[in-house]
Amino acid sequence: MILKYKILILLLILLEINIFSQINSDHPNLFLTPQSVKYIRENLGKYPIFDNSLEKMKCEIDTLITKEIDVPVPKDPAGGYTHYRHKRNYKIMFQAGIMWQITGKKEYANFVKKILLKYAYLYPHLDLHPVKKSYARGKLFWQLLNESVWLVYTSIAYDCIYNYLTGEERTEIEKQLLIPYAKFLSYENSKVFNRIHNHGVWAVAAVGMSGFVTQNKQLINAALYGIMSQKGKAGFFTQMDSLFSPQGYYTEGPYYQRYAMTPFLFFAQAIDHILPKLNIFAYRDSILLKAVETTLQLTNLKGQFFPFNDAVKEMSYLAQPLILAVDIAYDRNQSKKSLLSIAKLQNKVIISGAGLNVAKDIYFHEAKPFKKVSLQINDGAHGQKGAIGILRASSNGNNITLLMKYASQGLGHGHFDRLALMMYNNGNEVFLDYGAVRYVNILYKEGGRYLKENKTWAKQTIAHNTITLDSVSDFKGNYKIANKFSAEAYFFDSSNDNIQLMSAKDTNAYSGTILHRTIVSINDSKIFQNPVIIDIYRLKSTKKHTIDLAWYYKGQFMKTNIHYVPYTRSKSVLGTKNGYQHLWVNAKGRVNDSIFHFIFMNQHKFYSLTSNSNDEVYFVQIGANDPHFNLRNENGLILRERNKDNYTFVNVIEVFGTHNPISEVTKNLNNSIIKTELIYNDKAYTVVKITKQDHTNLNLALSNNNNDKNALHKINIAGKTIRWHGVYYIFTNL
Amino acid sequence: MILKYKILILLLILLEINIFSQINSDHPNLFLTPQSVKYIRENLGKYPIFDNSLEKMKCEIDTLITKEIDVPVPKDPAGGYTHYRHKRNYKIMFQAGIMWQITGKKEYANFVKKILLKYAYLYPHLDLHPVKKSYARGKLFWQLLNESVWLVYTSIAYDCIYNYLTGEERTEIEKQLLIPYAKFLSYENSKVFNRIHNHGVWAVAAVGMSGFVTQNKQLINAALYGIMSQKGKAGFFTQMDSLFSPQGYYTEGPYYQRYAMTPFLFFAQAIDHILPKLNIFAYRDSILLKAVETTLQLTNLKGQFFPFNDAVKEMSYLAQPLILAVDIAYDRNQSKKSLLSIAKLQNKVIISGAGLNVAKDIYFHEAKPFKKVSLQINDGAHGQKGAIGILRASSNGNNITLLMKYASQGLGHGHFDRLALMMYNNGNEVFLDYGAVRYVNILYKEGGRYLKENKTWAKQTIAHNTITLDSVSDFKGNYKIANKFSAEAYFFDSSNDNIQLMSAKDTNAYSGTILHRTIVSINDSKIFQNPVIIDIYRLKSTKKHTIDLAWYYKGQFMKTNIHYVPYTRSKSVLGTKNGYQHLWVNAKGRVNDSIFHFIFMNQHKFYSLTSNSNDEVYFVQIGANDPHFNLRNENGLILRERNKDNYTFVNVIEVFGTHNPISEVTKNLNNSIIKTELIYNDKAYTVVKITKQDHTNLNLALSNNNNDKNALHKINIAGKTIRWHGVYYIFTNL
Repeated sequence: MILKYKILILLLILLEINIFSQINSDHPNLFLTPQSVKYIRENLGKYPIFDNSLEKMKCEIDTLITKEIDVPVPKDPAGGYTHYRHKRNYKIMFQAGIMWQITGKKEYANFVKKILLKYAYLYPHLDLHPVKKSYARGKLFWQLLNESVWLVYTSIAYDCIYNYLTGEERTEIEKQLLIPYAKFLSYENSKVFNRIHNHGVWAVAAVGMSGFVTQNKQLINAALYGIMSQKGKAGFFTQMDSLFSPQGYYTEGPYYQRYAMTPFLFFAQAIDHILPKLNIFAYRDSILLKAVETTLQLTNLKGQFFPFNDAVKEMSYLAQPLILAVDIAYDRNQSKKSLLSIAKLQNKVIISGAGLNVAKDIYFHEAKPFKKVSLQINDGAHGQKGAIGILRASSNGNNITLLMKYASQGLGHGHFDRLALMMYNNGNEVFLDYGAVRYVNILYKEGGRYLKENKTWAKQTIAHNTITLDSVSDFKGNYKIANKFSAEAYFFDSSNDNIQLMSAKDTNAYSGTILHRTIVSINDSKIFQNPVIIDIYRLKSTKKHTIDLAWYYKGQFMKTNIHYVPYTRSKSVLGTKNGYQHLWVNAKGRVNDSIFHFIFMNQHKFYSLTSNSNDEVYFVQIGANDPHFNLRNENGLILRERNKDNYTFVNVIEVFGTHNPISEVTKNLNNSIIKTELIYNDKAYTVVKITKQDHTNLNLALSNNNNDKNALHKINIAGKTIRWHGVYYIFTNL
Repeated sequence: MILKYKILILLLILLEINIFSQINSDHPNLFLTPQSVKYIRENLGKYPIFDNSLEKMKCEIDTLITKEIDVPVPKDPAGGYTHYRHKRNYKIMFQAGIMWQITGKKEYANFVKKILLKYAYLYPHLDLHPVKKSYARGKLFWQLLNESVWLVYTSIAYDCIYNYLTGEERTEIEKQLLIPYAKFLSYENSKVFNRIHNHGVWAVAAVGMSGFVTQNKQLINAALYGIMSQKGKAGFFTQMDSLFSPQGYYTEGPYYQRYAMTPFLFFAQAIDHILPKLNIFAYRDSILLKAVETTLQLTNLKGQFFPFNDAVKEMSYLAQPLILAVDIAYDRNQSKKSLLSIAKLQNKVIISGAGLNVAKDIYFHEAKPFKKVSLQINDGAHGQKGAIGILRASSNGNNITLLMKYASQGLGHGHFDRLALMMYNNGNEVFLDYGAVRYVNILYKEGGRYLKENKTWAKQTIAHNTITLDSVSDFKGNYKIANKFSAEAYFFDSSNDNIQLMSAKDTNAYSGTILHRTIVSINDSKIFQNPVIIDIYRLKSTKKHTIDLAWYYKGQFMKTNIHYVPYTRSKSVLGTKNGYQHLWVNAKGRVNDSIFHFIFMNQHKFYSLTSNSNDEVYFVQIGANDPHFNLRNENGLILRERNKDNYTFVNVIEVFGTHNPISEVTKNLNNSIIKTELIYNDKAYTVVKITKQDHTNLNLALSNNNNDKNALHKINIAGKTIRWHGVYYIFTNL
C-alpha cells in the first residue's frame, strides 16, 4: 500500500511543472470559491442552521469593524494580552474576509486590509518572541504552533479580500508579511516543519496555503513534499501517510486528532480547489474522511473525546474543529447521512458551500442517527501498531463503554499506559483516566500550558487503570524507547452484542515481562441478571516483582469486605517518584482468602469490583506533592501483589441498582457475584470461575497464544475435559 | 393573632358535638370525593399531564394487581426487605384505591381488600419492631415516623374501597387494624403524638384520617386538639400555629418542610371535605397555602432546596410531596398562576380534582412564570425568631443567590450555624453548606439513617461559612440551649435591584459576644464592572478569642497572594473535636499587610475572595477521621484571627471571567478589587473601604445599632464629615 503512495508521490514530483501549470488562480480559492460564494448568496434565508451560523458570525464581527484593532508588539505568554490579541486578530480577519465575500460590503474588506497592513508594517521588525518556554519559539507567539495557526487563517482572510486590494497593497502584504512569515515557519524552522506531528501539520498547512495565495511554488512544494534532502519523507503527503492508521486513527489520540484535523482539512480543501487533479480527498482510500468518522467514534455519549494521552476532558465534538470536519466530510460524501445528526447537535455550520449543504440537508430531514459501535481502531501507518479497543453495550438503563489502549505511545503527548482500561456508563466516567494536568488558556495556571504534574503524575503508569511493576512506569518512563514499541492486538470480537471481548498483550513495557489483558463485556440476563465486565489480567515475567493494579473510580465509597486501617488522623504518601509521590494513602487493607469486594455509588448507580487479589489493597487519593493545587483529588484503589513472577488478576465489575435522590428510593441492590477464581493457568490456557450468590458459577476459558477463531482446544480441569473452538469459551457450573 | 386562634379553637371545642354532627360520611371523602371522581371521569382524555400521570399510575399498579402481595413479619431496618415491602404496600394500596374510584374495575378494589385483610390478620400479633435504633419504635417499621406514613396512605386506600367492602370486612379491618393501629400511634405513644415536629404532624394526620374513615370521634378529637391534659397545646391546630411562621416558614428548614407538607395537606384536605365549616385552608390567614409558596422560594435555580440544617442536597420541588403541595395550593387559590409553571416542570399531577384542575389550566396556557425573589422569611410562630435572608440578583450570565441563616436552631434537625452564608450562581454552589451526612435509604450506609458524622461534622459550627470561637460550636453544641434562642434580623433591603442588603446579629451563640454580619450584593456596573458581594462580619466580645471564619468553596484553586506552606508529603488534622477533627490541613499561610486574595474557578467562572484578614489562613479539606468514607472531600479556607475581643472581617467576593472548555477561550479575567479595609469601627458605626485596580475606591458605612430607615447619621473620618440617613450609605473616593 505505502509503496503505491510513494510511487504516486514520485509521479507527482515528476509532474510538478505540469501540475503547477494547472493552478486555479481565481480568488477566493482556499476556503471559499467563486462558485461557493454564488451558491451561498443564492440560498440565504432558506436554511436556519446556516443562517443562524452566519448571523452569529456577523454579530461577532459587526461590533468590531468600526473599531481600530490593536496589533501589539508581542510580549505575553499564552493567556496574556498580546497572545490573546494576535489569536483574536486572525479569527476576526478570517470572519471579516468571509463576510466580505458573502455580503460584498466593503467595510469588511477594508477592515481586513487595515489589519493586514498593520501586520505587514510590524512583522519585519520582529525578533523571536521574548517568552522562552517553547522548544520552538515564534515571533507573534511564544510557540511556533500558534504562529502556524495564525498564518492558516490569515491566508484565508487574505485570499478572501485579494481582489479588493490594489497590486501595491498585495505586494506589501506578501513581501513584508506572508512570504517571510511562511519562510520563517518552513525554511527557518525546518525541524518543526518536517516533523511528523500536529505542530508539523499546522506548519505545512500554513506554508502551503500562504504559498497558494502568493503563488509561491517554493512554499507549495515545501508544504506538499517537505524541505530539502528530506523530500518524500516530510510534507503533507507524508503526514497523511504517517499520522493516520488505515482506519483514520491519529496516533496522538482523539484530543489531538480533533486539533490536527483542522489543518489537514483546511489545506486539503485548498489543494482540492487549486490542484483538483491531485484528488486529495480520495488519497489513501479517503483517509481524511475516514479520520473524521473515527474521531467521532472516539467520543463518549456526551460527545467528549476519550481522554487517553494528554487530553482535556470536557473537549467534545461540539468544538469548532469538528464542525469544520463534519461539514467538509459530509460535503465530500453526502451518502453519510449520519454525519448530519452530529451536525444537528453542533447546531452550527461553517460558512462555506459545505456548511450550506449540511444545513440544507438537515432542513430536509435527511439526518440519520450516528451509531457509536464497538470497534477496534488500529494504530500505525500500516495498522500494525496495536489498537484502541472499544466495547459498547446497552441494556435497560445502562449504556456501557469500555476502552482499552493497546496502541503505540502516541508521540510526545502519549502516556505510559499500556493496556489501561476506562469505563463509562451513560456518558459518565466510572473507571477513569486522569487526562492531562493542564488548564488550557487559563493565565493563573502557568499561562495555560502543561503543568509540571502532567509529567510527574498524568503521564506515569500508576496514574492509569493498568499494572505498574516495582513502582516504575512502563519503559522506565523513557519516551524515546516507548515510542519504538506498541502493544499488540490479540483478539477482538463484537459480533455478539451480549458477549463482547477484547484482548491485548504487551511484551515491551517491562523487560522480560508479558502482560496480557482480556476484557469481556456480558449483557445477557440468562448469564447474569446485571451487566458484568470480566477483566483477566495475566502477567508472566522472568523475575519477581511487586505488581500494582490501579483502579481510579468516580463515586462514593459504599462498602468493602476487607479489614482495612484508615489513616484518619495523619496521611502519608504512597511513594517518592514515578507518580507515586502524588498519591495519598487513605487506607490500607489486606485481603483474606483471595476475595476482595468493593462497592461504590456513581451517579445513582452501584458498582461492585470483585477480585481474586490476595495481598494488599491501598485506598488512595490523588493530590499529594501538589503545592499549587493543580490536581483533582480523585480516588482510586491499588491492588498490590508482592514478590510474584506469574500472576493473573481475575476482576469482575457488576453494575446494579439505582438510587433516586428525589423519591429517595433505592432499588435492586442485588449484586450477584461473590467470588472470582483463577482455576487453570498455563502458557496456552487460562480459565477463570465466577461464583454467584446462588452458588451457581460461570467459567471462561481463554486460549492465550492461538487467536485463530477456528482452532480446536481441549483442557482437563477437575477431572473434566473441556473442549471448544475459538479463542474463548464460556460455560457454566464446572 | 394567636389569641384569636385560641379563641377559635375554644369555640370549636365547645361546638364539637355540633361539628361532628355535620360530618360528611359519604365515601370517598379523604383524598377523593364523589364529586371529584365524577369530575375526573368526565374529563379523561382531555388534558395530557393528567392523563399521563394516571397512565403512569396505572402502569405501575397493573403489573401488580394479579400478583399475591407479601405482608411479611417486620424484621429489617430501613433499606431492608420488610421495611421496603411495607412502604411499597401502602403506596400500591393507595394507587389501587384511586384506580378503583376512577375506573370502577373491581380488580383494583379487590387487590386493596386482600392486602388490608392480610394486615388485619397480621397486626394483632405484632409486638414492637425488633430493630432498636429509634427513640420511638413502630411495629411494622423501626421508627414510628414510617408507621404514621403507612396509616395516612392506608386510610385513603380504605376510604376509596369503603363502599366495595361488606360490613363484616369493614369491621374486621377497622377493629383488627385501623383503630388499634391509630391508638398505638396516639394514646400509646402520646409523647411523639403531641410533639411539635414533623413526626408529630405525620402521627396526627394518620390518626385523624383513620379517625375520619372509621368515624371514631376520640381519634378525630385527639388529632385536632391533642391528647389528654395537653388539649389546646397539641394536635393539628397547634401544629399549624407553632410550626410555621406567619409567612409559612417551617422551622426545621426547607428539606423537612417538603416532607412535613404532605401530612399537613393530606389531613387539611380531608378536614375540608368532612368538616368544611372549619374552613381549614383559610386558617391563620391561609397559612398552609403560604407555606407552599415559601417552600418553593427556598430553592435554588435547579429547584433544589437550600440545604441548611439536616438536608440531602439533591432533593427538589420535583419530589412527590411538592407535586401534592403545588396541586392542592393551586386548586385552593386558582389566581396563583405562577404555581402552574412549577407544575409544568414537575410534569406530573396528583390523581384528584386538584390535579385535574392544574393539568387543565396548564393545557389552556394559563401558567405564569414563578418568580424567585429576594426576601426575608421570618422564623417563629409570631415571626419573632430571626429569619432566613435571601438576596437574588441577575446580571449578564450571572444569576446569584445569597442566603444567610439568622433564624432559630431548627429543632432537632437544626445545625449550629448562626449567621452562616451560602452562595449560588446559576443554580451551582459557590460557597456551600455541607447539608446532612446521610445516604437516605441506602442500605450500605447504616441502612440509610443519619450517620455518626452528621453529628460530629455536619451540625458543628466549623462545618459552616460563619465564625467559630475557640474551636467550639455555637452554644457549645448544646441543642437544648440553642433551641431557646434565635438570631436577630437587623435590617433587610431588596428594594433596589442593584444594591441589596441583609444584616443580622446574634448575641447568644457565644456568651458575652455580639456577632453582626452584613451582606451587600452589588450588581451595578457604575460601581463595579463585575458582580460584587461585600461581607462585613463584626465581632465584639467581653473576652479574647481565637476567631475562625470558614469559607467552603466548590471549585479549583487558582491563585493566592499569600505565602503558604503546603503539606505535600504528610497531612494532619486541624483539631480533635467539634468538627475540627474532620478537617485535613492542606496548607497553612500567613497574611501580610492585611491583604488576602484567593481566586478559584467554579463551573467555568472565576471568583475572588479579598479579605482584610491579617493573621493565619488554613486551606482545609473535609475527610479526616472518617474511617467509613462517609464524607465528601470538599475544600475550604479558614481565616483565623488569634487573641482578639473585637474584630471585623471585611470580605469581598467578586465574580468575573469565563472559561469555555470547548472553544478553550478564557475571557475577562479582569477582577478589579485589590484591597479591603476597615476604616472606622465603634459601637455605633462601621465603615469599610474597598480599593480597585484603578486606585479608586468605594466605601460603605453602616449604622450598627439603629435600623430606622430614616435616622440621620454623621461621622468624621480622615478629617471629612460623612452624613447620611438610613442604615447604610455607599460613597466613593474617600
